Formats: sequence, structure tokens, C-alpha cells
Amino acid sequence: METNCSNLMPLSSDFAEKERSICIFGTGDFGRSLGFKLLQCGFSVIYGSRNPNSATLLLPKGVQALSHTEAAEKSSVILLAVHRDHYSFLTKITDVLEGKILVDVSNNLKINQYSESNAEYLAQTVPGAKVVKAFNTVSAWALQTGTLDASRQVFVCSDDREAKGTVIDIVCAMGLSPQDQGSLVAAKDIENYPLQLFPMWRLPMYVCAGLTVFVFLYCFLTDVIYSAVKEGKDISFRISISIPNKVFPIVSLLLLGLTYLPGVIAAILQLYRGTKYRRFPDWLDRWMLCRKQLGLVALSYAFLHAIYTLVIPIRYYVRYRTSNSIITQIRNNDTSAFVNMYAWRTDSYIAMGILGFFFYVLLGITSLPSVSNAINWREFRFVQSKLGYLTLLLCTGHALIFGWDRFMYFSRFRWYLPPAYTLSLVVPCIVLILKLILITPCIDKRITQIRQGWEKSSKVQTGTKFANGDFTMECNI
Amino acid sequence: METNCSNLMPLSSDFAEKERSICIFGTGDFGRSLGFKLLQCGFSVIYGSRNPNSATLLLPKGVQALSHTEAAEKSSVILLAVHRDHYSFLTKITDVLEGKILVDVSNNLKINQYSESNAEYLAQTVPGAKVVKAFNTVSAWALQTGTLDASRQVFVCSDDREAKGTVIDIVCAMGLSPQDQGSLVAAKDIENYPLQLFPMWRLPMYVCAGLTVFVFLYCFLTDVIYSAVKEGKDISFRISISIPNKVFPIVSLLLLGLTYLPGVIAAILQLYRGTKYRRFPDWLDRWMLCRKQLGLVALSYAFLHAIYTLVIPIRYYVRYRTSNSIITQIRNNDTSAFVNMYAWRTDSYIAMGILGFFFYVLLGITSLPSVSNAINWREFRFVQSKLGYLTLLLCTGHALIFGWDRFMYFSRFRWYLPPAYTLSLVVPCIVLILKLILITPCIDKRITQIRQGWEKSSKVQTGTKFANGDFTMECNI
Amino acid sequence: METNCSNLMPLSSDFAEKERSICIFGTGDFGRSLGFKLLQCGFSVIYGSRNPNSATLLLPKGVQALSHTEAAEKSSVILLAVHRDHYSFLTKITDVLEGKILVDVSNNLKINQYSESNAEYLAQTVPGAKVVKAFNTVSAWALQTGTLDASRQVFVCSDDREAKGTVIDIVCAMGLSPQDQGSLVAAKDIENYPLQLFPMWRLPMYVCAGLTVFVFLYCFLTDVIYSAVKEGKDISFRISISIPNKVFPIVSLLLLGLTYLPGVIAAILQLYRGTKYRRFPDWLDRWMLCRKQLGLVALSYAFLHAIYTLVIPIRYYVRYRTSNSIITQIRNNDTSAFVNMYAWRTDSYIAMGILGFFFYVLLGITSLPSVSNAINWREFRFVQSKLGYLTLLLCTGHALIFGWDRFMYFSRFRWYLPPAYTLSLVVPCIVLILKLILITPCIDKRITQIRQGWEKSSKVQTGTKFANGDFTMECNI
Repeated sequence: METNCSNLMPLSSDFAEKERSICIFGTGDFGRSLGFKLLQCGFSVIYGSRNPNSATLLLPKGVQALSHTEAAEKSSVILLAVHRDHYSFLTKITDVLEGKILVDVSNNLKINQYSESNAEYLAQTVPGAKVVKAFNTVSAWALQTGTLDASRQVFVCSDDREAKGTVIDIVCAMGLSPQDQGSLVAAKDIENYPLQLFPMWRLPMYVCAGLTVFVFLYCFLTDVIYSAVKEGKDISFRISISIPNKVFPIVSLLLLGLTYLPGVIAAILQLYRGTKYRRFPDWLDRWMLCRKQLGLVALSYAFLHAIYTLVIPIRYYVRYRTSNSIITQIRNNDTSAFVNMYAWRTDSYIAMGILGFFFYVLLGITSLPSVSNAINWREFRFVQSKLGYLTLLLCTGHALIFGWDRFMYFSRFRWYLPPAYTLSLVVPCIVLILKLILITPCIDKRITQIRQGWEKSSKVQTGTKFANGDFTMECNI
Repeated sequence: METNCSNLMPLSSDFAEKERSICIFGTGDFGRSLGFKLLQCGFSVIYGSRNPNSATLLLPKGVQALSHTEAAEKSSVILLAVHRDHYSFLTKITDVLEGKILVDVSNNLKINQYSESNAEYLAQTVPGAKVVKAFNTVSAWALQTGTLDASRQVFVCSDDREAKGTVIDIVCAMGLSPQDQGSLVAAKDIENYPLQLFPMWRLPMYVCAGLTVFVFLYCFLTDVIYSAVKEGKDISFRISISIPNKVFPIVSLLLLGLTYLPGVIAAILQLYRGTKYRRFPDWLDRWMLCRKQLGLVALSYAFLHAIYTLVIPIRYYVRYRTSNSIITQIRNNDTSAFVNMYAWRTDSYIAMGILGFFFYVLLGITSLPSVSNAINWREFRFVQSKLGYLTLLLCTGHALIFGWDRFMYFSRFRWYLPPAYTLSLVVPCIVLILKLILITPCIDKRITQIRQGWEKSSKVQTGTKFANGDFTMECNI
Repeated sequence: METNCSNLMPLSSDFAEKERSICIFGTGDFGRSLGFKLLQCGFSVIYGSRNPNSATLLLPKGVQALSHTEAAEKSSVILLAVHRDHYSFLTKITDVLEGKILVDVSNNLKINQYSESNAEYLAQTVPGAKVVKAFNTVSAWALQTGTLDASRQVFVCSDDREAKGTVIDIVCAMGLSPQDQGSLVAAKDIENYPLQLFPMWRLPMYVCAGLTVFVFLYCFLTDVIYSAVKEGKDISFRISISIPNKVFPIVSLLLLGLTYLPGVIAAILQLYRGTKYRRFPDWLDRWMLCRKQLGLVALSYAFLHAIYTLVIPIRYYVRYRTSNSIITQIRNNDTSAFVNMYAWRTDSYIAMGILGFFFYVLLGITSLPSVSNAINWREFRFVQSKLGYLTLLLCTGHALIFGWDRFMYFSRFRWYLPPAYTLSLVVPCIVLILKLILITPCIDKRITQIRQGWEKSSKVQTGTKFANGDFTMECNI
């Protein structure tokens, strides 16, 4: 909801005056920005400072600046916009802070900088206060300019539910959207959150970049350099469209294969171990956790491949070649016959590519947070597993029929290198073959049992357990 | 927010020790998975079991296994991971459960399997406990592997608000996102939720599949079989692209018509009845509730139609035909003249198609949950109704201008069957004509009155009502 | 979550009977719709009316109609579906309303119609009641038909947290999704919300419409009218595709430039003022607040440009021209040579266009509410700023290379007007040059200082402040 806190005057409702006045310790940038925004939204703001007189000069108009003790007495809510290193000064005024709501808004400079979160450290320093963690994910710059597109979310956590409620109400009144994160244990995650820069995307991006560079060089070598060396032709203009349009589909299919490979490996590992209660090796865990990102990178490459393909007939080079071939046919009085088989083949791989891309886009849409939140686990598994494998099958088929029998003509290999498209096919084919084996009824049944809690070593005991009244909830697979 | 519960050691904060220890009844798969996850997130976990000694073997390391009574005494929160059929054993230990928070995590095997929800049944069985429904939408498999993309949402409901708050805090601490669903009455829906498999999509998918098969056979008959029988030509390769590219647009336009038809029927029914306070017939209700899904299926077919159309110039068949026609022209020394009219017509239907598709995509984007939640009812009505009819108009125009006068040349009909595109036009044209009638001022005014609460039979009374101070809120149409 | 409130019978749980019965004052359309829905969801509904007997005729079956006082006594929750002008009648029954939860569901006819919100006015009228604002964003029509796609969200606010909790539970039980908006101060925004019709989109749409009309007329003049006047040729068919495909990219690039211009102006202004603590001029503020919308309009035009470009080879006019040029070449026995340079140039601008469009779509996806909520401020800034300028750079390069040296051939200008594409380049080039200057290390350092709270005038004081323990949180830029 868009809120218009255009009212710059503090509201003067006699009732609940103390509720509407908020104390801020710290007159640094973030403290001032918070005060500015609170003032705009109708709160009266009191700053606590060591030098109230000099501080006033810096502060937004309409606020009071008092000593820490005086300021704290005027409000039941104190926002602590002070660096963690200076929390110790609070120990001198613990008696004023007794029972007050103390809001820790601090961030650190590095992820996991301290062993305990700033908010938990604050709670230990001032045990009498009700410590709430909030506002650290909001940007001072955004608070002042009002451009709050991405940073409306304010994560709030506290061990005191009443205090948390009060802070949540303040967050609402400021036009921000509070996110209750539970008890103060969550503070560590909340403090780490604003320091992250796409942590889940890093590995997939590196893999993708590496593959892209490799495949590009491969294509550049067999295309441009081969032509220049062997035929003395300069076809360097192919760098801008023709070669990318080989790189994108190859890397995309590879990545799609890599998205489904860890699931297959995990299933084999569970089959081999005969239990699901042992952790996977770390590399497999990390790989499984970034499958979504791998898939989305692959989708973006598939999208680029689609557009690069659709512009083919617009390109000067292609138009030139087409008209040249027609002119040559006429000059030589030679008409090529229509080959039904060839029409079938080309139309098939185009159709498979389109359908594959379509299901791929569907998968991408269901991985949007709001869509994946609106479907349940059963539906998600249906989409990601069934539709995912269908996509992989269609895209692999697309590449196979596109390539047809070219990979067999060693005579046409350039410098003994097979055509580039073959690079993309190894991983997806392995995944599809392994998956085919895994869904044969006998193996599938065993995997299902394992995922429902069955264990090779404790067969008898599980049997007893059922009789005991403790039940494996089969719906919760 | 990504949470990193990498800390496997239980936190040992002296303060609130009991708060941080959680008891689980049931050592089945889901009970064990919950315990595993809770342990990871810093809780201490105590299992309650009939045979604590044998149970220990199965449980994650670091947990305690005690008898039910002993375990319950150690914690104020008890997760009940036991099948509904075995709830009766709780009646023997009601005194220990008095005042405890009892969390029902169970699911059923079928939708509406029992008359009352498991959680309500539990509340009747142990009246002294504060029953909370939670965790049933999370998958055991996902809890263990940490791949929680789709299943982060935990629906929580309870009649005791304090108990609900405690469970919500636990859910947060586990890195899941709690969804407050109100009082325990909601438990039934929450228990049905994970059993659903796209219930709203079923009808639209059946309709779509039926239409697709019918139109495909129609096109196959008039295209491929007709050619084979009458002209002896094998054009079966058209199955992969040419025929789908007839089927997709035809079915898409039909479905788009069917999306807007029920709204028109409902308006006519209300006009006829003179009131909005009578329920629609069941079939109309069901139809109206799946309009969004119908529209999205139609959009996906339109998307496929767009790509199938854009690949046309890449296809071997098309390129062959083009070069063939040029060669023929030259050999016959015959140049076709540029027909301005034809350029107008083809460009127009292409432009209408593109604009129609564009608005269609816009409609699709606004139906994403996060987008439709960010707009209010007035804006939603504007988009879905105004833009929706504009889309229908543009797409129908696209088909009409594409078809032009072909439907009138009976001589060119194949086996007396009209060209396939005419199939798609009947429903949209009916909808558009009816809509045109409905938006004529006099009829529109009456419908608006009815939708604001006016009733044919109670004209006088409504008049009185207004004077009475009970007011129809006209903004809430 | 889909809820199925198909149960039409009121639930008869002895326990908490009063909790489950809800009183509605007002038998107008919205009051009746609410009662209908509550009844469906298992509540028992009692209407309060001046003329209970005559009112009954209008009401849904299964409800009671009593006098206001009698009705209020039967329930602890009263929904007030009465117009604000009639709130005064409540003063006569304040004693019955003492301590009751009074839910204001009203809307106004205009934004900011009254100085205080209806709910705050109600709280003043009946000081003894716990006033909650809710349900005003839901549509009566949607409540009755059950088509609640867009209007599931119910904004709830109140100064009484317990009362708010009760109403939130009722909202949940009705299958709607409550949104806690904090204290009663939020009521004003909540009441304005349903009256808005895309307020943030208005300015961008006007700008876009103005530019579209201007560029269209410019192209129409230099294309169609110039041809008609000077060459006597009728190329009016170009109106449907060729000219739009000039208008869309030109306006899109212009708008993209206008999206990034205010940020650059703001940075220069801050540099010049030497502080970030002074408000921007109003026009700049408004401009900055609608950047997202400007960017999305530009994206939609870029999307249209992409499709209009991809259909080029399908168009009759283009196909005619192609075959004509081939025929002419053959007849004149004249073969045009392949120009490597030209292949490079055309392929480059196509590739830049595709990549620019790709990043543009990425930007669009990250501005979906659910995606931008899932990323933190640092990530958002990375995407919108880094990727945004990359997009602008690629699109400007696309236009520059497309245009090449055409803007220099004054002889080929039509009526002294430069080619249309030059129109689009001025703004983006200015933005890019200014940005280039702003990111030079010395200037960038100063801007960063300013945005962290540094002020030209208070250099010394800030130095003291640091020593004082009040710290600028640098992570919160």
C-alpha cells in the first residue's frame, strides 16, 4: 500500500502522547534519517546526545535534543542508532532504561563479524530493557528521499512479544512493511542479511561464466580461426551473432543438465546407503541448494538463444546468402528438389525447441517467489520434477535432432574437434539415462520407501514402531 | 530471507531454558525430521516415546528420548507427530498436558477424510491443552535436505493467541515463514491444503485439452488427409509446425472468449432476475471461479502461437517455397505487382495480433499473486475488465482480418468444412456483441443499480432504507 | 491458500458462542454482503436495524434482525456498515458499546474527503469502544460471488492490539488475508487506498502518451506525407507496422533516459549543495518517485519494438521487396558483393539490441514486488544501478550503430528534419556523459561522503561527533 506521510507537523493527540514520542540515541546519519522520517509520519522525536546543544544544529527541524537520561525518560521506545562499540555507555543509565523498549538498528561491516549478534549483546548489556531488533535493513538514503521500492521490508525480532508489537506498529505507521522474525535469536540472520550480495547466485554464475568462455573459445577456434587459416576467409563478423547463438544454447543445455544431475546423484547415494538419515557430502549439499539459480541462468541463456535465432532472417549476412543461392540456382539453371525428410527434421527440432522453451518459461514463472508461495509442496514437486524432466527431454531432443548425424562425420571435423553442439549433449543424456533407470518400478519403490523413513539396517524396528503408534506420515514425503 | 541455521550445537542460554526445549511425541519419519531441523536451529529436543530405549537408536544425535509423561514435563511446547488414530493415548496423560501448547502437525490421506479436522479432534480429546495447528504443509524430505523453496510457508492457527504466538516464533527460528490463519476453524482448510493438486486448474485443462484435440483433428483432416486423398501429396511434415500453429491460435481465442462469456451470462441473469442476491446456478459459479485459469491457459497458447509464427521464415519449407516462387517468376518472365491493399491488410492483422498479445501479456503479469496483491480492487477491475475486453477485441480483429473473406468461398471449402479459423470466431464474436449491448447506457445503468444492491421487487423499501440511515456504500461495488 | 467455506450452516459450538456471533449495524448492500459471507463461513450473524421487522425481508436467510441495542448486546464484535454521516446515532447507545470491538468498514467518495479518517472520527464519537478499521478494501460484489482474486487483502488497524487480533482472526476465518497496518493513524491511508487508480502511473503515462504522439507525427510527416508530396507514392500502409516500429524504440529509449536522468540531477544537486539534508525541489522529488513506472513503460515499448522487429520477414511488403530485388539483380545481371563491414555493423547493432533487451527484461523481473522483496537493499542497488546503466549503454549503442552516419547527411534530410532516430539519442547520451563524469574517482568519493552524512558546512562538528560515540553507520548508505 502506498502511504502518503506528507504531514510534516507532529500530531498532537493528548491521548497516548508518550506512545507517539520516540527517543533516538545517536545523531549520526542513520539516527538523523530515522528521526526525519518519524517526524514526517507524525511522531514527536527526542534525540539523546552527550552534547545536546551542539547536536541540535545538525538535527532536523522540530525535534528536541536532550541528554541521554532526559531523552530516555520522555519516551517508552528508544531507537539506538549508535555503533556496537559504544553500547557500554548504556550501562551507566540502566535504571532509566528499565522496562523500556530498546530498538537495536545497527549493522556490521562483515558477515558474522561478532560471535553473537549486536542485539543479543545489547540485551546482555542492558538486561532490564526489552530489546527489539529492527530497521537495520532499511537504507538511510531511502528513508530521506522516500524511494523505498526495495527496502520497505523491516525485519523485527524480540523475545518480548508486547515490545515487538509496539515496534511493528511504529514500522507500519512509517509506511514500511514489518516482517516478524520471531525471537531475538533471529537477530544474527537479520544483521547478516543486508550485507549479502546474491550469495546463492555466486556459484552458478561462476560455473556459467567458465562454461561460456570455454564454449566461446571452442566455437571461435573451429569457426573463425579455422576459416581464416584453412580457407583464408575473414568471417570475424560471426562473433556478434552466429557464435553467441552457438554458445548460448550449448551452455544453457549443459546448465540444465547440471540442474538435474545432483538430484539423480542424491537418489543413487540414498539407494546405495539404504537410508536418508545421513547427510550428503558437502559439495552435493551446496550443489543441490543452488539448483534453482542454475536453472534460472540456463533459462536466461535459452531466452537469448530464442531471440538470437528469431533474428536470423533479418540479418544482412543471411539475406545476402539467401538471395545469392537463388541467383546461383537460376544462373546454373538448377533447381533443388523439395526433400520431405528434411522438412520433417527441421520442423521437428524447431517445434521441440519451442515446446522446450515454453515449459522452461513455465518453470521460471513458478519459481517466482509469489507463485511458488501460492502452490503447495505436492504441486511444486509436480511442476519442478515432472515439467522439469519434460523440459530437459525436449531440449535434449531439440539438440539431438538439430545435430542429427553430423557428429559421425569425422572427415568434416575441424582440427579433429567434434561439432560444438556435441559438447552440450553429454551431461543431459547421462541425466536422462540415469533418471530412466531410477524410475523403473523396482528401484522407484525402494527410493520411495527410503524417503518415507525406511532404513536398510533397521527394518525390524520400523515394523515394531508402526505397531507402537508412532506413525510415518506418508503424506509428508 | 535466507537463514543459515548452520549451528548444530543446541544453544545453552540459561535464561528461558524451557522455552528453547521442545518435546516431540512420535519418532516416525516426520517426527525425526522435525527434531533434526529443530536441533540444527539451536533448540534442545526431547522425544516422547513408549519405548524410549529402542527409539533412541533411530533418532538424530544430541536428542533425549523419554517416556511420554517425562518428556512432556520438560517442555511447554509439544509437537504431536503421531497419527490421528493414536491420539487416544493422550487421554491417559491429560494432567501433564494441562496448559501445554500441543501442536498438531498431522495430515490426512484424502481431502475431507474426517468430519472435523485432526486439530479440532485433538482439542476435544485434550481440552486442557492449547492446541495449535502447524507444520503440516512442510515436507519431511525438505526439512532434512534444506531445499525449502516451495515449502517455507507454515500455516498456523489456534484459538489461543498466546500459544499461536509461541509457535510462530518457533517457526521463524526454524527459518520458515509462518502464516497466521486465525482460529482453529481454519485447521480443516490447512489440512486439506497439502493434498491439493491444482484443483482450480483441472477444469480449464480438460476444456483446453478437449478443444486442442478436436481442432487438431479438424486441421489434420482438412490439411494433411485432404491433400493425401485429393491431391496425392504427402504433407505430413506440417504436423510439427503448420498445424500446431493453427491449433494454438484457434484454441487460444476460443478460450479467451470462454473466459469472458460467464461474466456476460451473469450480467444477463442478474438483469433478468432483477437482483444480485440470488445465487448463480452451480455450473456458472464454477465457470466464473476458473476464469483466471482459463485466461492463463489461453495466454500460454497465444505465447506458443507467437513463437510458432516468428519461426516461419526460418523453416526449410518456407524458404524453399519462397525461393521457388522467385525462380518461377523469373523463368516465366512474370512479375507480380505490389498490391497496396494487400500490404494494408496483412500489416494490419499482424499489428493487431502483436498489440493483442502485448495486452494479453500485461493481463498475465497483473494476475501474478504479488502484482494483483499490490493493486486495489478498482485498479484490478480496470485492468481485467477494460484491458481484458480490449485484448479480446484486438485478438478477434486479428483473426477476422486474417481470415478476411475466405469463409465465404464455399467452393474452396474442403469436404464442405469451413476453414479452421472460423471455428475460433463464434464464441468471441458472441461475447463482444453481448458486451456491446450490455454497455449501452440504459442497460449499463440498470446493471450498476443491481450491483449496488437495488432489487426489482423491493424498490420502495430500498427507498425507505436510504432515509433510514442504512446506506449502500456505492464505492464498494 | 484456497479456502472452501461451502458450509452454509452456522457452526454450533457451545464453547465461545459469543465469539462466533457477529453483529452488523446497517442492512445496506455491503452490510448484507458481509453477513452473507460470514454466514457461509460458519458465523452466526445478527443485524442491528431501526426497523428490524422490515429489514428482515432483505436479509440473507438464517440471520436475526434486532434493534441496535439488542443486537449489540449479543456479540462482542460489531461491524459498522453505515455511512459516516449517520455515526451520530451511536452516541445514544454508548453504554452498550462500552468495551465492544467496533469495526469501521466505511469508504469515502473522494481521497482525503474529511480531515480525519472515518475510523478516527468513530473512535472520538464512541470513546468507550475499541475501534478497528477493516474490510473497506473488499468489494461487496466479490464477497458474494466468491471471485476474490484481487481483493483478498484486508488492511486492519487499531490502537487496541487485542481487538485487532480478534478482527484478524475473523478475517482469516473468512478466507481473506489480513494485513496488519499498525495503529489507527493508518486508517486514513487505508480509506484512501481503494479510491486510487494507479496514482503513480499517471505522470509516466502522460509523458509517454505525449512523446508517442509527437514522434508518431514526426515519422508520419517525414515518411508518409513526404513520400506522398515529393514522390507521389502512397505508402500509407506503413502506418500499421513500419512507423510504430520507429515510434516504439525512439520513445522507449527516451523514457529510459528520463528514468536515469533524475538520479544524475540529484547527485549534481547534492554535490553543489554539499549536503544531503536539504529536500530536493518538488518536481525532482515527483520525478524520482515515478522512475520505476517510467522504466516499466519504456520496457513495454521495448517489448513491442522487439516483436515488431521480429515479424519483419513475415510481412508481405518485405517479402515482395526482397524477391523484387533478387529479380532485378538477375535481370540486370548484376550481383552485389558481400560487404564484411556492413555485416559487422548490422550484426553488432542487432546483438547490442538483444542484449540490451535481455538486461531490460531482467530489470523488469526484479521490479516485480515479490522479487524485489526477496532481495536486500544492496542487491537492489546493484541490479537497478549497475544493470540499469548497462542496459542504457547497450540500448544507446544499439541506436547509435543502427543510425551510424546517417545523421550527418544533411542532403538526405527530409524537409530539413533529421532522421527520427536522432530524437531518441539526445537524452540518453546526456545521461551517460554526466554519469561518466560522476563516477570519476574524485567526484564519486565526494558523493559517497555526502550520502554517508558528511556536510560541507559542518566538517569540524562531524569530526567531533565521531569522537563522541555517535557513529554514522556506513553500511546504511
